[in-house]
Amino acid sequence: MQKLVEGIHQFQTTSFSQQQKLFETLAEGQHPLALFITCSDSRIDPNQLTQTKPGELFILRTAGNIVPPYGSVFAGEAATIEYAVTALNIRDIIVCGHSHCGAMGGLLKPEAVESMPAVKSYLKYAESTRRIVEENYKHLTDPAKRLTLTVEENVLVQLESLRTHPSVAAALSRKELKLHGWVYKFETGEVFTYDPSKNEFVGLGEATNLLAEESRSLPPI
Amino acid sequence: MQKLVEGIHQFQTTSFSQQQKLFETLAEGQHPLALFITCSDSRIDPNQLTQTKPGELFILRTAGNIVPPYGSVFAGEAATIEYAVTALNIRDIIVCGHSHCGAMGGLLKPEAVESMPAVKSYLKYAESTRRIVEENYKHLTDPAKRLTLTVEENVLVQLESLRTHPSVAAALSRKELKLHGWVYKFETGEVFTYDPSKNEFVGLGEATNLLAEESRSLPPI
Amino acid sequence: MQKLVEGIHQFQTTSFSQQQKLFETLAEGQHPLALFITCSDSRIDPNQLTQTKPGELFILRTAGNIVPPYGSVFAGEAATIEYAVTALNIRDIIVCGHSHCGAMGGLLKPEAVESMPAVKSYLKYAESTRRIVEENYKHLTDPAKRLTLTVEENVLVQLESLRTHPSVAAALSRKELKLHGWVYKFETGEVFTYDPSKNEFVGLGEATNLLAEESRSLPPI
Amino acid sequence: MQKLVEGIHQFQTTSFSQQQKLFETLAEGQHPLALFITCSDSRIDPNQLTQTKPGELFILRTAGNIVPPYGSVFAGEAATIEYAVTALNIRDIIVCGHSHCGAMGGLLKPEAVESMPAVKSYLKYAESTRRIVEENYKHLTDPAKRLTLTVEENVLVQLESLRTHPSVAAALSRKELKLHGWVYKFETGEVFTYDPSKNEFVGLGEATNLLAEESRSLPPI
Repeated sequence: MQKLVEGIHQFQTTSFSQQQKLFETLAEGQHPLALFITCSDSRIDPNQLTQTKPGELFILRTAGNIVPPYGSVFAGEAATIEYAVTALNIRDIIVCGHSHCGAMGGLLKPEAVESMPAVKSYLKYAESTRRIVEENYKHLTDPAKRLTLTVEENVLVQLESLRTHPSVAAALSRKELKLHGWVYKFETGEVFTYDPSKNEFVGLGEATNLLAEESRSLPPI
Repeated sequence: MQKLVEGIHQFQTTSFSQQQKLFETLAEGQHPLALFITCSDSRIDPNQLTQTKPGELFILRTAGNIVPPYGSVFAGEAATIEYAVTALNIRDIIVCGHSHCGAMGGLLKPEAVESMPAVKSYLKYAESTRRIVEENYKHLTDPAKRLTLTVEENVLVQLESLRTHPSVAAALSRKELKLHGWVYKFETGEVFTYDPSKNEFVGLGEATNLLAEESRSLPPI
Repeated sequence: MQKLVEGIHQFQTTSFSQQQKLFETLAEGQHPLALFITCSDSRIDPNQLTQTKPGELFILRTAGNIVPPYGSVFAGEAATIEYAVTALNIRDIIVCGHSHCGAMGGLLKPEAVESMPAVKSYLKYAESTRRIVEENYKHLTDPAKRLTLTVEENVLVQLESLRTHPSVAAALSRKELKLHGWVYKFETGEVFTYDPSKNEFVGLGEATNLLAEESRSLPPI
Repeated sequence: MQKLVEGIHQFQTTSFSQQQKLFETLAEGQHPLALFITCSDSRIDPNQLTQTKPGELFILRTAGNIVPPYGSVFAGEAATIEYAVTALNIRDIIVCGHSHCGAMGGLLKPEAVESMPAVKSYLKYAESTRRIVEENYKHLTDPAKRLTLTVEENVLVQLESLRTHPSVAAALSRKELKLHGWVYKFETGEVFTYDPSKNEFVGLGEATNLLAEESRSLPPI
């Protein structure tokens, strides 16, 4: 804790003063650019990664960047998503997985989470991920590649789940919201984005289309 | 989104290279200093506030830094807390509220969240906060002071809720875990911590005791 | 009841004997062509509509052809879908709404279901439908057109929800399952199917593509 | 799918025109004779079995014709039953099991559903059935007879469960609703009904009483 307290002291005496104006303005309200859903993992810093300042990213973080489908539980995920879309009028949601994810590791190796009932229970919302990997990639035995694939598939599965949230479904159908699927490989600094036209994750610069996919609702009459 | 993509490019060409060694080492595993539970609010950046680097803070963020009590729902909060304590052997948990919190504003003004059923449902886990404020501070009518008090009381209420999680309760009883209640006033850069010996929130430097262990409700004003 | 008992007698003495061979063969097992998800409404007869014989359609029927997302409740919908895909190896799932649907009428007019708590509770799984219609089609005031639109949008919403079921997600990603969205207008005998290339419901004969949309999972390596 | 599309075309050009008047009249509303609860099994066609026309049977179908007791889950079963009784003023409810039921087979052989967590979870609502068979019929070892008995007992168990639904309980107590327990042996076309005066299932013609009202468990063999 001492290190954190000292860090705060350092923040107050240096960075804060450089951004004091910004912070004072932000007291009047926030207008973030996006909702960023990512893992609780300590190695991920969404603001550092995107070089964003306070006020720019609304951030939901839980172990494994998992989004339970709507109606399954009314916990933080549903409330945070609804608040972002309805109260803050967010136009972009990014679901960002990452390399070396411990939650995804636990999904592939259930015995590793046997002693953690809440984790085990939460991972049922990634059961689609587990089955996609298990059933479709039997021949992929290299553990590192298998984990990478799991992280990628999980981003797509959680995007599906995100669509079941009414605030998201309604905004998608108004074409006022876009969904994005990313994977951050922190050890190289690379970010990959799902490109639906190629049906694969590509380097962020190479994507021909930044959307996870098009809206499937009927057009306004 | 363009701004975020450009930010990532900037990160890759500047900050990443300065920390490349650190990121490569972190691929072997994380050993964070603490679990930091805070709000999804875009104005809060826990890493900036504590001047911590990747690998140092395991972070749970949902609207209102609310922690549903154990057993009520098996969603991200329970799993993330359990993973932090059991798998990562975390020794300190900070629940950090903040000034101008929209979720706490919604708690005081239920009609503001009437159109957001998931938010409304989530705020029931802060119902103790609402009742403490409503029943004990009737004479406190200034809206700004009332919101500040609500943010403070809510940190204490969520700390209680945190104690209902078995992994937390067991580690507390082994004296291997400490809980901390903070409020970050972002417009001034100040951080207040709950000091149980004084039974109030004090400036982080003035606290005689960083733990939030003893009796935990604020006295009536 | 007398009418039903007489109907059974008539069945036994006429239709049954014409299909006796078929029924005897079916005692060895079922290999249905598709899972047909539709409303409990008495005016809908999936076998009559598709002119299918016993053994050809596995049928899930509840009020409003609603599919709660996976993990929300473990009731008949999840079990029936899983059994169809996993045990019966179903390759096509049709979600079929219909004209004059009372459940969708209740969704648009909540006071009509106020005295039916279980119905009201179930309709929360069509909350996305309600919001899409309410938020995007404010100017569409004709009640009949509004109901038709609601029935169509609900088929798309329930298809999204269907994708959150792990057995469905895994089979979609293996490209061994196709999802179809239909609306049956029983008073004219017409069937409309969602055509994603046109982003609208078209007469079943005119569809250029019978799929509700393409798989979004990564391809097998 | 091609077969279904062709079937619809055939329906439109032949059967529909014969019933066009009926379908047009039904657009004004439905007044079904009964709520028919049966299995999703493709070999069962309730309209064919009872020779009923569109508008005559309100139909709830899930795997195993299982009815979770009220309050356990708010899913399709509770909503459909409530809608039938409260909105449609249904006077008769039939729970109809059938021969060669895969869900009941899974109940007797849990390892068969081990890979289907949603099915396994749903079968807990037939746990009474399983225990009645296991504890009272130890000596009945012939698998075919054991499955037939299980199907029969399950109809009685689900009738009990149906009674826990408030709309049903209230209508029963007003004597405005009757419950019926049937088993359809599709390979012979026979239908058996539970006769409480004999405490057994008898051929539909032989029943002295079509109600399943009094004591409801079968005696030990």
